Amino acid sequence: MLLTAYAKGVFPIAPTPFLDDGSIDVSSIDRLMDFYLGCGATGVTVLGQLGEAPKLEHAESIDVAARMIRRAGRLPVVVGVSAPGFASMRALTREVMDLGAAGVMIAPPNTLRTDDQIVGYYRQAVDAIGADVPFVLQDYPLTFSVQMTPGVIHRIVGELPSCVMLKHEDWPGLEKISALRAFEKDGSMRHISILCGNNGLFLDYEMERGADGANTGYCFPDMLCDVVRLSAQGEREAAHDLFDAHLPLLRYEQQPGAGLAVRKYVMMRRGLLTCAAQRKPAAAMSATARHEVEHLLRRLAKHDPRAALAD
Amino acid sequence: MLLTAYAKGVFPIAPTPFLDDGSIDVSSIDRLMDFYLGCGATGVTVLGQLGEAPKLEHAESIDVAARMIRRAGRLPVVVGVSAPGFASMRALTREVMDLGAAGVMIAPPNTLRTDDQIVGYYRQAVDAIGADVPFVLQDYPLTFSVQMTPGVIHRIVGELPSCVMLKHEDWPGLEKISALRAFEKDGSMRHISILCGNNGLFLDYEMERGADGANTGYCFPDMLCDVVRLSAQGEREAAHDLFDAHLPLLRYEQQPGAGLAVRKYVMMRRGLLTCAAQRKPAAAMSATARHEVEHLLRRLAKHDPRAALAD
Amino acid sequence: MLLTAYAKGVFPIAPTPFLDDGSIDVSSIDRLMDFYLGCGATGVTVLGQLGEAPKLEHAESIDVAARMIRRAGRLPVVVGVSAPGFASMRALTREVMDLGAAGVMIAPPNTLRTDDQIVGYYRQAVDAIGADVPFVLQDYPLTFSVQMTPGVIHRIVGELPSCVMLKHEDWPGLEKISALRAFEKDGSMRHISILCGNNGLFLDYEMERGADGANTGYCFPDMLCDVVRLSAQGEREAAHDLFDAHLPLLRYEQQPGAGLAVRKYVMMRRGLLTCAAQRKPAAAMSATARHEVEHLLRRLAKHDPRAALAD
Amino acid sequence: MLLTAYAKGVFPIAPTPFLDDGSIDVSSIDRLMDFYLGCGATGVTVLGQLGEAPKLEHAESIDVAARMIRRAGRLPVVVGVSAPGFASMRALTREVMDLGAAGVMIAPPNTLRTDDQIVGYYRQAVDAIGADVPFVLQDYPLTFSVQMTPGVIHRIVGELPSCVMLKHEDWPGLEKISALRAFEKDGSMRHISILCGNNGLFLDYEMERGADGANTGYCFPDMLCDVVRLSAQGEREAAHDLFDAHLPLLRYEQQPGAGLAVRKYVMMRRGLLTCAAQRKPAAAMSATARHEVEHLLRRLAKHDPRAALAD
Repeated sequence: MLLTAYAKGVFPIAPTPFLDDGSIDVSSIDRLMDFYLGCGATGVTVLGQLGEAPKLEHAESIDVAARMIRRAGRLPVVVGVSAPGFASMRALTREVMDLGAAGVMIAPPNTLRTDDQIVGYYRQAVDAIGADVPFVLQDYPLTFSVQMTPGVIHRIVGELPSCVMLKHEDWPGLEKISALRAFEKDGSMRHISILCGNNGLFLDYEMERGADGANTGYCFPDMLCDVVRLSAQGEREAAHDLFDAHLPLLRYEQQPGAGLAVRKYVMMRRGLLTCAAQRKPAAAMSATARHEVEHLLRRLAKHDPRAALAD
Repeated sequence: MLLTAYAKGVFPIAPTPFLDDGSIDVSSIDRLMDFYLGCGATGVTVLGQLGEAPKLEHAESIDVAARMIRRAGRLPVVVGVSAPGFASMRALTREVMDLGAAGVMIAPPNTLRTDDQIVGYYRQAVDAIGADVPFVLQDYPLTFSVQMTPGVIHRIVGELPSCVMLKHEDWPGLEKISALRAFEKDGSMRHISILCGNNGLFLDYEMERGADGANTGYCFPDMLCDVVRLSAQGEREAAHDLFDAHLPLLRYEQQPGAGLAVRKYVMMRRGLLTCAAQRKPAAAMSATARHEVEHLLRRLAKHDPRAALAD
Repeated sequence: MLLTAYAKGVFPIAPTPFLDDGSIDVSSIDRLMDFYLGCGATGVTVLGQLGEAPKLEHAESIDVAARMIRRAGRLPVVVGVSAPGFASMRALTREVMDLGAAGVMIAPPNTLRTDDQIVGYYRQAVDAIGADVPFVLQDYPLTFSVQMTPGVIHRIVGELPSCVMLKHEDWPGLEKISALRAFEKDGSMRHISILCGNNGLFLDYEMERGADGANTGYCFPDMLCDVVRLSAQGEREAAHDLFDAHLPLLRYEQQPGAGLAVRKYVMMRRGLLTCAAQRKPAAAMSATARHEVEHLLRRLAKHDPRAALAD
Repeated sequence: MLLTAYAKGVFPIAPTPFLDDGSIDVSSIDRLMDFYLGCGATGVTVLGQLGEAPKLEHAESIDVAARMIRRAGRLPVVVGVSAPGFASMRALTREVMDLGAAGVMIAPPNTLRTDDQIVGYYRQAVDAIGADVPFVLQDYPLTFSVQMTPGVIHRIVGELPSCVMLKHEDWPGLEKISALRAFEKDGSMRHISILCGNNGLFLDYEMERGADGANTGYCFPDMLCDVVRLSAQGEREAAHDLFDAHLPLLRYEQQPGAGLAVRKYVMMRRGLLTCAAQRKPAAAMSATARHEVEHLLRRLAKHDPRAALAD
């Protein structure tokens, strides 16, 4: 079951669960996958930037991907294969596709600048991994410093049929979704799936601009599923009400660098992870930050009972 | 009346009002200043990055600053004097201080990298403008790509007595406020005023971390004043309630590049500006974006009557 | 006499001469211009990055440009007008064109990334300064971090008829010259003048690739003139012999940041400048560096008698 | 035999030889190592940036390193282990040290900015690879965009005893060597080996500033050995004469991006490599560039007979 350009819904970015001693927490992997299946996710993305992929040795990466793919069952699993060289990208891709991955996600190296360099990079990547492997184009200038105009995405989609999805994380990005959907409407570009990242910070309006869903790691993936569903059903104000209730926490979790600790902490408080531990190097969460997150959860619980967590 | 390290409250970043033909809209300058005075602002910052300063010819900058200073009356006015060279920084500083400015704001050029380069730059800037002119250190890595650790700010504050205020816009930045206030508590650094930027995106918790207020341009400066006041009075939940109601719009306005159009549009809708026009080059606001902002205002009006605007 | 796309030869980048007290050294300006006239230069560029333009107040810039233009006589003078905003770019352009400048040089701001941003920036710049003012496109990625592909230059030349010259400083850049000349040969792009920068580090082969000359500030502009002349006359080995003799010193002067001190020092030793002083902020030259430069001059004097300087 | 802080001489950066079909060319590995041994190299560095390390799959990297280490015999071999995550850095280090490497080389990721981030990164790296593995600090701001002041290197050397060598590639960098040697002289920093990179562009004066030798990949490593030897013996003018003769070619090869093709081409012409092939992605060398290199070789041969190559 390969990823297609018609994917919709929510593909949560799965964190990699660790125990306090740094070992991989396999029982939390299972619990997490079961939760995604239960809450309405339509796919999962693993070994992304925020999945702490660079902290895993190669064999561990394969083990984690294998376990997640197996447990995810009917959900298509996308595996992050961004690498400093095409040799390791190809090797990792081959292995995870053999394990049953639905496709791979490729971020641009932060040295790319010109339009031609960006298009050329993806051409070479497809050459390395094979044109039969569906891939997700990750457009995240805030982290990767690479700016892809709608025109560049148009060129990549036109040239490389295996590009089936855009992980949209440009910021600001609303007009970009409109521009891409306009290309589709005027017939100059084929349809691709657009799932939104950036922790969902603009998911409310991104859905209205033509996005197909979310592809991000916010600690309440169930909320993302609800908002995408409500928005798709035309229940606009209900979608915004739920989204706005989560926005204070979501914004807090979206802080670059600091956010993953928050995400893992809340997922631990929700019983999804055994520990909030990250592998080194990791920014610890201060006691004050913990109090702020608990405060955010208490305030959120007034609107969404899922945030009412026993101490 | 010079700016001191004990400034508190809200210093809105004033936009520069233009008419549709690109000329400076002096009547809106007056209206805006009167509004700041009336809503509880404790200062104003003019000719900042989002005041479209680079689009003004030198004589225009002086005229705008002069009019704003005169009209602001008892409010201290800080003028942005960031410039590619120290010669023009010195010239502009001299002129605006003669006109009655309370101090100047200096952003680091985006070519600085090492700690020593940053400290050295501010040393040279003070050498250029004179040690008797109070200045605001603008710490905005998202836009300027210059990262100042707490240790670097510690060095600047220690070495340069005329540094009286930090415009805090690091992201994430909560722990940075805590670190700076800890330096103060342990006696290793003198007190400086910390006012927060980033459109106020974390103002709720920044106040609790020890910030003295806000120094940003959100289209509801009156809300910023209320949140700062409520927080200072210890009315924590009331401060958060008001802040959270504004967060969806505030986040929308915080989009880099796109935000100024939103800010000017809402200020026009509120009757503060005659036109939403920016001088060229400027990103226009699409019809869809305008509908989104109107939607955000309607939703906000349910919580804050100031957002209930006649069509 | 406006700059045209058929300019050839050497346009030295003139340093701005200062006395030790930081004041402008007008007698050295005259001496320098006379030297350029005498040694075969075909134009002059003033107030560039290495002309310490950002250290001059506006009125000083105008005075310096005026004096240089007057003294340069029949030589076309190009004035650097790069500025953080279009308002000051327009103001400066107007003033120097009124004084008799032949054209202006515009560098891209280092925040530009995508092809469209770069083309858009020059479109706006021309809109600001007027389509009747010939301009030089400065392509210097090492300093400005902006990468212009041949395709982007093709678009700018195609869209903006007032673009008449490329200051070519890409690195590596030989293939770029070939690519641009191929566009010209296949009829897809009109001819523009290509003068080379980077202190002339590849001038020997750049001439053979189709460049029209040099536009750089090396302390022996007379050598640049000779190499360009010899190369144009087909005296290939003689051109390389002279060039190679200078290469050790030329390379030393090309060091970013440190090079201007070397350049001014040698020009002082040659009697072209009264002092080697730079305005603050400036990196001083260490005693060791001075000895190294003297050593380089002594070694060079064995091949080029112009380097034999009395102590 | 582990690398120590007293290493001197020339550690060539070995290219990875490929055949035209992209497979690894083991016979050229042997020939190359024998050449290094014969020409006076005192060590070798393998799998560096210009060793095309990112184009090798993990098993290939290990094979190449193993063969090079074996063949290098008594020469200490340093292996590049820079990686996007500490897990793979640790894994690769363990394997190559087991194979007999003398130490590893670690470049900073190009996202580091502040002094604390740089020092912290090397602290974490040592934590990952083990404090018993000697490492080379690679200071190459031109490629990695990370600027290490002498003060930062001072901190790293002071804190991390396993830092035994600096691969010095800052540009400009002469004053940096002087600053580091001054730290040593005033007793504030222990001695480390300083070997210079940047293709040797300033090797002549770097030796005189206190460098211990070269650590770079120029296609005439035998010339590097001669210059280092002559300079160490106090034969200053002879060292400069030889160096200056090579400078035109050396400068040509130093072009970022384009240089590796030149290096492999000349090494093929010298009989050291069977093919000049690079693995994809690679910039091909144009016919014009090839003619230029042949021209440079012919001119060089007038001074250095080693450059007289049969067609």
